[in-house]
Amino acid sequence: MNLIPLPRVVIEPLVRNALVEDLGRAGDLTTNAIVPAGLPAHAVLRAREKGVVAGLDLAKLTFELIDPAIAVQVELEDGAIASPGSIIASVSGPARGMLTGERTALNFLCRLSGIASATAALVAAVQGTKAKIVCTRKTTPGLRAIEKYAVRAGGGANHRFGLDDAILIKDNHVAIAGSVSQALRRAREAAGHLVKIEVEVDNLDQLQEALVAGADAVLLDNMSLDMLAKAVAMASGRAITEASGRVTPASAPAIAATGVDLISAGWLTHSAPQLDIGLDFDD
Amino acid sequence: MNLIPLPRVVIEPLVRNALVEDLGRAGDLTTNAIVPAGLPAHAVLRAREKGVVAGLDLAKLTFELIDPAIAVQVELEDGAIASPGSIIASVSGPARGMLTGERTALNFLCRLSGIASATAALVAAVQGTKAKIVCTRKTTPGLRAIEKYAVRAGGGANHRFGLDDAILIKDNHVAIAGSVSQALRRAREAAGHLVKIEVEVDNLDQLQEALVAGADAVLLDNMSLDMLAKAVAMASGRAITEASGRVTPASAPAIAATGVDLISAGWLTHSAPQLDIGLDFDD
Amino acid sequence: MNLIPLPRVVIEPLVRNALVEDLGRAGDLTTNAIVPAGLPAHAVLRAREKGVVAGLDLAKLTFELIDPAIAVQVELEDGAIASPGSIIASVSGPARGMLTGERTALNFLCRLSGIASATAALVAAVQGTKAKIVCTRKTTPGLRAIEKYAVRAGGGANHRFGLDDAILIKDNHVAIAGSVSQALRRAREAAGHLVKIEVEVDNLDQLQEALVAGADAVLLDNMSLDMLAKAVAMASGRAITEASGRVTPASAPAIAATGVDLISAGWLTHSAPQLDIGLDFDD
Amino acid sequence: MNLIPLPRVVIEPLVRNALVEDLGRAGDLTTNAIVPAGLPAHAVLRAREKGVVAGLDLAKLTFELIDPAIAVQVELEDGAIASPGSIIASVSGPARGMLTGERTALNFLCRLSGIASATAALVAAVQGTKAKIVCTRKTTPGLRAIEKYAVRAGGGANHRFGLDDAILIKDNHVAIAGSVSQALRRAREAAGHLVKIEVEVDNLDQLQEALVAGADAVLLDNMSLDMLAKAVAMASGRAITEASGRVTPASAPAIAATGVDLISAGWLTHSAPQLDIGLDFDD
Amino acid sequence: MNLIPLPRVVIEPLVRNALVEDLGRAGDLTTNAIVPAGLPAHAVLRAREKGVVAGLDLAKLTFELIDPAIAVQVELEDGAIASPGSIIASVSGPARGMLTGERTALNFLCRLSGIASATAALVAAVQGTKAKIVCTRKTTPGLRAIEKYAVRAGGGANHRFGLDDAILIKDNHVAIAGSVSQALRRAREAAGHLVKIEVEVDNLDQLQEALVAGADAVLLDNMSLDMLAKAVAMASGRAITEASGRVTPASAPAIAATGVDLISAGWLTHSAPQLDIGLDFDD
Amino acid sequence: MNLIPLPRVVIEPLVRNALVEDLGRAGDLTTNAIVPAGLPAHAVLRAREKGVVAGLDLAKLTFELIDPAIAVQVELEDGAIASPGSIIASVSGPARGMLTGERTALNFLCRLSGIASATAALVAAVQGTKAKIVCTRKTTPGLRAIEKYAVRAGGGANHRFGLDDAILIKDNHVAIAGSVSQALRRAREAAGHLVKIEVEVDNLDQLQEALVAGADAVLLDNMSLDMLAKAVAMASGRAITEASGRVTPASAPAIAATGVDLISAGWLTHSAPQLDIGLDFDD
Repeated sequence: MNLIPLPRVVIEPLVRNALVEDLGRAGDLTTNAIVPAGLPAHAVLRAREKGVVAGLDLAKLTFELIDPAIAVQVELEDGAIASPGSIIASVSGPARGMLTGERTALNFLCRLSGIASATAALVAAVQGTKAKIVCTRKTTPGLRAIEKYAVRAGGGANHRFGLDDAILIKDNHVAIAGSVSQALRRAREAAGHLVKIEVEVDNLDQLQEALVAGADAVLLDNMSLDMLAKAVAMASGRAITEASGRVTPASAPAIAATGVDLISAGWLTHSAPQLDIGLDFDD
Repeated sequence: MNLIPLPRVVIEPLVRNALVEDLGRAGDLTTNAIVPAGLPAHAVLRAREKGVVAGLDLAKLTFELIDPAIAVQVELEDGAIASPGSIIASVSGPARGMLTGERTALNFLCRLSGIASATAALVAAVQGTKAKIVCTRKTTPGLRAIEKYAVRAGGGANHRFGLDDAILIKDNHVAIAGSVSQALRRAREAAGHLVKIEVEVDNLDQLQEALVAGADAVLLDNMSLDMLAKAVAMASGRAITEASGRVTPASAPAIAATGVDLISAGWLTHSAPQLDIGLDFDD
Repeated sequence: MNLIPLPRVVIEPLVRNALVEDLGRAGDLTTNAIVPAGLPAHAVLRAREKGVVAGLDLAKLTFELIDPAIAVQVELEDGAIASPGSIIASVSGPARGMLTGERTALNFLCRLSGIASATAALVAAVQGTKAKIVCTRKTTPGLRAIEKYAVRAGGGANHRFGLDDAILIKDNHVAIAGSVSQALRRAREAAGHLVKIEVEVDNLDQLQEALVAGADAVLLDNMSLDMLAKAVAMASGRAITEASGRVTPASAPAIAATGVDLISAGWLTHSAPQLDIGLDFDD
Repeated sequence: MNLIPLPRVVIEPLVRNALVEDLGRAGDLTTNAIVPAGLPAHAVLRAREKGVVAGLDLAKLTFELIDPAIAVQVELEDGAIASPGSIIASVSGPARGMLTGERTALNFLCRLSGIASATAALVAAVQGTKAKIVCTRKTTPGLRAIEKYAVRAGGGANHRFGLDDAILIKDNHVAIAGSVSQALRRAREAAGHLVKIEVEVDNLDQLQEALVAGADAVLLDNMSLDMLAKAVAMASGRAITEASGRVTPASAPAIAATGVDLISAGWLTHSAPQLDIGLDFDD
Repeated sequence: MNLIPLPRVVIEPLVRNALVEDLGRAGDLTTNAIVPAGLPAHAVLRAREKGVVAGLDLAKLTFELIDPAIAVQVELEDGAIASPGSIIASVSGPARGMLTGERTALNFLCRLSGIASATAALVAAVQGTKAKIVCTRKTTPGLRAIEKYAVRAGGGANHRFGLDDAILIKDNHVAIAGSVSQALRRAREAAGHLVKIEVEVDNLDQLQEALVAGADAVLLDNMSLDMLAKAVAMASGRAITEASGRVTPASAPAIAATGVDLISAGWLTHSAPQLDIGLDFDD
Repeated sequence: MNLIPLPRVVIEPLVRNALVEDLGRAGDLTTNAIVPAGLPAHAVLRAREKGVVAGLDLAKLTFELIDPAIAVQVELEDGAIASPGSIIASVSGPARGMLTGERTALNFLCRLSGIASATAALVAAVQGTKAKIVCTRKTTPGLRAIEKYAVRAGGGANHRFGLDDAILIKDNHVAIAGSVSQALRRAREAAGHLVKIEVEVDNLDQLQEALVAGADAVLLDNMSLDMLAKAVAMASGRAITEASGRVTPASAPAIAATGVDLISAGWLTHSAPQLDIGLDFDD
């Protein structure tokens, strides 16, 4: 996998913010009261269930910003599959900083690994087809860059990053424009030459209109499997086809079998449960 | 319910950040290309499933920051129960701003309502007992204040907000201190007079030690129902008892029946699925 | 022209920052020493040379943030052509705030109008051809969003907004990959479905390679007019053609006559002189 | 030259902001797709035209923040004159970071070197006279500190940094006060003991009034050469004399020959074209 | 003393902000004009009066952010008592950075040491009693975390950090609620299980009401020594007793002798004079 | 008095920061638990001792940012003298917001009024002489702009705002340069034309050297009254004379009587006690 790492200038503000949020106005009362300064410790980040790892750079940076003397040795890179009990990384250094940073590091790592794991489950479900799994803009406010990264770590691809980097004409836009073709015409006039245009269609008539009007991609929302297959046949390569709605590991194989290019699922970023990972200290 | 509202100075930076993240460097290409400036619209925020509403102030502020001409009329306050189809609020004003702000407003509202709904399900499961449902520090980095608020909207209570506002001695702290009583002694020396001290205990011997040492609260982690009941009896009011581990709406009644004061569940904030809410435009 | 306005959440931090930079640690010493509080004034923003206006929202916000009692009445919208002496807007309110905000408002307005005017000159030079004028990433650090907006106000189009929203394979990338086709292959594997891929080619052999490998666009850098024409013929609609290098109002017509789709010019944002606009107070 | 370097705490936020602006939400798609991680490279920052270098600390910091493994060896310090082809610095390290940081580093370096070069041209034009070249507050919003630095690198001096660090009475202030002497009286009352006071005068009567009222400096705006000479004679050392308006390398010698102390030019910071500098990679 | 250090992520923004505030837009004019680059220097931070040291991490970070080549060797840790002439730390490195950072480092160190010293004087005055000295929310805006830290360095304890981490019912709250018991009832309903509740009482009747209603702590504001003693007797361990009002080193022993648990003094953070510490350079 | 008001863009970040600091992560627990939403209240800001008011804009903005429905009616402007019991302003609106904002508003107002009052005491002590009272850079980190404003409100004047807006050569600079004249020579070469140069001198020989070298001002640090008088006579108007060291209301008259132009006192900003002001609610 060729996974573009998150630049440090992008993640550092997120990690600093999370640490300040947790340290509050007085720091870690418990650890400083109980753990002697300088006491060394060793621990491992261990998966407690099967899944795909994502977010190690954020976890590493958490410990580094708490105490540069903490060393993190990565065993499983982002994108790798962890089994229950797998050691993801080992962490060594002053015990105080390790205990203070533990929760923040895990909050990043478990959330992103959860998204990566959910994505990987969908990717596995469509293996052997040409369908790619993509995410949406239904992300956690403030964390879009890292959640989209986690989707990539899980083998998925990214849809639009924001309202500004592609045109996606939704049903409400179509309603205001009057028709799919009218909406596409207006979009084409306004779009730059590197901006692709996608339009949501509800039925095959609208699809036909979109194809004629030259849409780059069509969003086939909540269509039956039967209609999806007809839509793919009708598009026949003239536009990228994207299916969305009620996508689960169970439903995905049949959706993919219709021949669509993309299958998008908002829940990957808004409702995927975290992956359970713990920081286990040596006794 | 006496729900403390989130101060505007606290949420405004979150909403601004989310909007900038979505608007990117060029704004909403689609809406500006297709929707005429000044065109009025009316829509409703409608629940698509049953749940508890939370986050309306964030949704309202989203629209206000996009265009102050957008008016939001709230029908169901935070903390209210929405049925499938319930109108939560109506939104009127320039169509452009409503379409541009839609996703950001929903990203806040659906996430927080999801947390509130999950909390409410646990609260309902323990109704009739004295147990309170509480959350943890396993929150989304950067969103702790609003996620803890959503727990309160769902009828739950908040545990620590950060490492600095209470002492919670975990198993690793106990291991380093040598014993529960030794850890408590160090904590007591360091703690201010308004800081309560809780300690995690694994068995009844440790519990006894904690009670003797004067812990304000004890965290009974992953104990069997039987042991929980014994622990409650042993504590007999000398310390607040908190149960944690594998808490679900199904398991919660039996846990509550042991007589514990608090039941904590990290998944409320790290893995609760969103509540499905949509913005439906009038035709 | 359908010019997407800059969202207020995007420009407000820029204007606040500029005001703080100018007001420093003690505010406007001169104006506060000399001008009585509450003294009313009226002035006009007047063009001192011909050009295209851009940046009025930034100028308006400057005055609003200094003193909400200042009213700005716009006479020429962004994108309109101002003649020498044209009144762009009238400004009324307390004299103190108008004098204090004058320089900051003009610093935004003159710079952006300069970029819009330079763009409009190139657009005019290629009128009647299909060529569009586009800008580059050679923008002022921190001001990219508003400078790209100014290019649109001048009738131009935007190329990439950043390293993340399209793939543009430069000569150094080709050198590292070993060949144009090898570079395109790697890019295609990594790119999302809405990401277009452009590659810089130095000669017709590379162009042929790019076309075969399926590039969405080709950057024809510093080619002679003759070679440009051959390149356009060779591409014959299979890829968007973009010419760059030594583009001026004088050279642009001949470049456009070769039939290229796009003509890009970095100097629009890095070296265009400002448009001279002044704030003239009524006597 | 004794050039005060820009403190790192001042420039670091500018560089971080510029990098985030360019990296956007997904990082450098092209480079990460094509260039293998860890591949080493070597390149030089080379001038493509003659000029004065300024901004190397910003360029160095750009690369350092992208990847601390990139080493920059400076060959020509800020303030030095580069000839076409001169190597300004050599850059070595991982190719990915070098390609990712290239544009941002150059955007700083080319802009500031452009300002320094324009300043140096004016400084050269007045060599042999006592006139100093100074800049104004007509700077790029947000970049004033570094643009004023570039003027110093070019051999110029700085006028006010903001509205708060000196008093400069403009024509509009004079009009409101009623007269030059009245304006100066009010300013003198309000000014601290380390604040110098300058006043703009339009004719010799106003100049006389300013001298009698004890102005520290007089701004002689758009005066003919003849009148400038008379003004200098009239001032005869009682106040610093500053000429402004239509200052170019061609007009500057004659202006300087009138004996003025300072010659100010707003275009140095608002309209100077960039200096063409490239990052040339070894083959 | 077990003094919880201030996390670097918490203090770094404060130090950066202070440095930018002092360096302004052009840096240290004086030092750069006069001191050769690279000239080494050695100096000591020396107490000029007796007091308790606090804030060394901030002083160290100031020098580090100015120039990482400056080394600070601490001789007296935070919380230690300095005598007049005591060397607190030695500072070595480039003279420029030492002179540039001097004032900012001292502004932090002298202020925090002043608070610590004032606290220590009160702590000494009540030695031998059980009374603890605590601070209030009357802190310098923006510096609460470090000022509360300074109180701890002086041997004091911290009261609430903000409006959100404990309930403190003041006289105005009681007036609105109608009675002490009514206010306590409402507070108890709203408070989380780890939140302690304190109520201000003006007389013994209100105290009795507070004790019956189960307040965790009572604030005895401006009571006579006689009444304080009666209040302590009445509380007899059922609630923590806190005396406030007119607390000075002279009055504190008698107040403590009444048996109160806590003595709070707002002036520790709002009016304590700084401790005089200088940076003495070797000749 | 012509007191330059603090621009809102300058103070708003300070007030927002202070509010977030106090509201923390859950808001005002006490007030929200006890005070009904919407309950109206009326209160007055009342001086509890004599002094000079400063900081009302900050107090007003505090309440406005908490709840725009709170109205503040100012009775005594900044710079006015309050007697014990004087009503400074009246505050009306929802009780919740008034109670929540009370402490933050007072923290600003009491601190700045304390500085203004201390300044006014020194100003009064030197009345009838030509000496002006000035402050130093010994300010609270992050609050310099508002503390310098408070000095002006008290009738004082401001010295340098930072290291960048004037040259002040201290004893350590002189030591490094080798002599006063050498230091002045280097400073003069580096300084812009609007930058004044002051030098600290320890004795009359150094003073003579400074005068010959053309210093704009001389800092006479810790000189005896006798030597101050001799220094003033020696300077005889060629340079501004500034006395510093051990300046109190008691010592100031004699210092001023020596004829110095300026008397500076660091303690005005680093050690002035607050002015006691309270928010008294109507019963």
